Amino acid sequence: MPQSSHPLPSAVLAEVCARVRGQRPLVHNITNFVVMNFTANVLLAAGASPAMVHAIEEVEDFVAISRALVVNIGTLDAPFVNGMERAAAAARRNGVPWVLDPVGVGATAYRNGVAARLLALGPAVVRGNASEIIALAGISGARPKGVDSMVASDDAMEAASSLSTRAGTVVAVTGATDYVVDGDRVVAISGGHPMSQDVTGTGCAASALVGACLAVSPPAEAAIAALSLLKAAAARAGDGDPGPGTFAVRLLDAIHAVSRGI
Amino acid sequence: MPQSSHPLPSAVLAEVCARVRGQRPLVHNITNFVVMNFTANVLLAAGASPAMVHAIEEVEDFVAISRALVVNIGTLDAPFVNGMERAAAAARRNGVPWVLDPVGVGATAYRNGVAARLLALGPAVVRGNASEIIALAGISGARPKGVDSMVASDDAMEAASSLSTRAGTVVAVTGATDYVVDGDRVVAISGGHPMSQDVTGTGCAASALVGACLAVSPPAEAAIAALSLLKAAAARAGDGDPGPGTFAVRLLDAIHAVSRGI
Amino acid sequence: MPQSSHPLPSAVLAEVCARVRGQRPLVHNITNFVVMNFTANVLLAAGASPAMVHAIEEVEDFVAISRALVVNIGTLDAPFVNGMERAAAAARRNGVPWVLDPVGVGATAYRNGVAARLLALGPAVVRGNASEIIALAGISGARPKGVDSMVASDDAMEAASSLSTRAGTVVAVTGATDYVVDGDRVVAISGGHPMSQDVTGTGCAASALVGACLAVSPPAEAAIAALSLLKAAAARAGDGDPGPGTFAVRLLDAIHAVSRGI
Repeated sequence: MPQSSHPLPSAVLAEVCARVRGQRPLVHNITNFVVMNFTANVLLAAGASPAMVHAIEEVEDFVAISRALVVNIGTLDAPFVNGMERAAAAARRNGVPWVLDPVGVGATAYRNGVAARLLALGPAVVRGNASEIIALAGISGARPKGVDSMVASDDAMEAASSLSTRAGTVVAVTGATDYVVDGDRVVAISGGHPMSQDVTGTGCAASALVGACLAVSPPAEAAIAALSLLKAAAARAGDGDPGPGTFAVRLLDAIHAVSRGI
Repeated sequence: MPQSSHPLPSAVLAEVCARVRGQRPLVHNITNFVVMNFTANVLLAAGASPAMVHAIEEVEDFVAISRALVVNIGTLDAPFVNGMERAAAAARRNGVPWVLDPVGVGATAYRNGVAARLLALGPAVVRGNASEIIALAGISGARPKGVDSMVASDDAMEAASSLSTRAGTVVAVTGATDYVVDGDRVVAISGGHPMSQDVTGTGCAASALVGACLAVSPPAEAAIAALSLLKAAAARAGDGDPGPGTFAVRLLDAIHAVSRGI
Repeated sequence: MPQSSHPLPSAVLAEVCARVRGQRPLVHNITNFVVMNFTANVLLAAGASPAMVHAIEEVEDFVAISRALVVNIGTLDAPFVNGMERAAAAARRNGVPWVLDPVGVGATAYRNGVAARLLALGPAVVRGNASEIIALAGISGARPKGVDSMVASDDAMEAASSLSTRAGTVVAVTGATDYVVDGDRVVAISGGHPMSQDVTGTGCAASALVGACLAVSPPAEAAIAALSLLKAAAARAGDGDPGPGTFAVRLLDAIHAVSRGI
């Protein structure tokens, strides 16, 4: 796949972060119970204004006053799914861009069904790890056939590109290297630190930061900026190879500093 | 508005904190998903015994064995609201004092309705930021008219005083300076650190600490002690201007230390 | 009660931790809202792969692909209880070992009923503090009569032994000293640090670690290894007597290090 014509991640990062800080956008999250606190703190560290609202009685009203929506399916149940679907539909009606994080898609039939229905509601960005993106591409009929002999990362790139084209969404695949895939264009973002794997919610944090950036930037640029911010912050937090508790604390400090250009 | 005849915050702080430590009151919380962990840790740091219980099948039994109740409407849905209303009603029946934290009131009609119904159940203290207190005063019919030209903080003071008088509750307005409003008496509590704004749940923590203090003290004194504790702890945690991750960790350490007079 | 013939905790600890790290078992948790984040981070620190899944639509599918299940009743409501019961029943059908953490049993009739129904579904290990184990033994009809004059810890030992025998489960009683009770055999695990009492979720973390170890070891060995890991990590985290915020961060660091033999 050709490299994209998007600007360099470092240039995008500084500009988009400054817009988030300057505008302090309200980011509406319907996310999982495990990461709600960490996600809110990540968004605050980056200068956004997070809110977690899921009740069917108010999600539509709330998304209408928000600048972006993040839907993360980590801990599902019927009332939450109902809230997610109503919020995503309202986001589409109101022109509020939204991010889908299909956590654990592929693990159960229920999860696959929920992810497929949400995907049909038009997220601006889908953010997942390689296996989630491959699973979602397969469910949505976008996964290319005959890729079994490919290595996992190439497989994810093919799936991401196909998913992006079919669903008309930017796809962000995160891992040791992150990839932002917009049709047949790909931007790779390296850096980070392996300890990110040993802290829960770093992937969910990536999705939330994409939401914050999506409030102030177009989808591909938002995804590039958000993942660049998190990679840079993780590299800084991992300096000296701290344990996972210390790493998580420093990650918040580093998001705060990096997003300010410090 | 005249300054109150309440004792100095510093004197109240030491005395009430010692009572909390000595009695280790069980504080029943029905709070939002974002802050449950942080709230529990804040209460433990101050020497209280926190419990989070929301099911309609047990909230009434549980509030009856608790010394105080904290109701925080951050992440609502119908079952939680049902639990909140039953718990607040049971608290009233059992003489258990309770705190209302009307998070985000004013943002949606649903949220306004829930806050108004809870307010009618007689909280001993309402704790919110300026915009929440203004919104709640407006919803409850207590907001004075013709205040549009006032600056925000004065506006909140008028709203708080009116709300306090109408609803028969102490109103705690937190921000750069905190105010405890009891009818026409006001105590101001300064100090703290601006990083409190970049950590989720510091307002919710204030409400929880009010709950702990309310278990051992009358409402105005409880609010003064709780907010003084948090302001003093935040000032200490913010020493040297750490990032938000480090600040949150140090805030727990500082609540633990300040509440012991260390 | 005689000391057991189990191997020394220190030997079990190293061996079981290495197996967890090597196999990275998927541990399915249905736990309370307060500790979900901390629990996931504790499991990741020990090298396990945590997932939180509670919806009735998918718990049975998910437990079938998991290596162990942890059911913690801290924050109950009817949908969660339904998910817990289905998951525990599916675990039994699929031969997936599971841990019951009867948080707060004894506090309300609802909680007692839930705990009794879950106990009947055959957990491999029950982990609780002394008062929870005594309450559960009483509810399940296993508590010996006439123990009122006993000191609390002895009382818990009698209750644990009786509960273990009647329910056919290993019982782990945690406190200043932990005890793993398997019928009439008892292994005591000392160490740790008193600050564990001032951080929410350390008991729940113990249960989660038992789940991780249960994925790779028989029940008594799993409980001994998990509690030994947590005691050793807490002792290390508490070095120099930090405040509770710092202690919690260091506890994750220390679980990560101790489980690697560092």
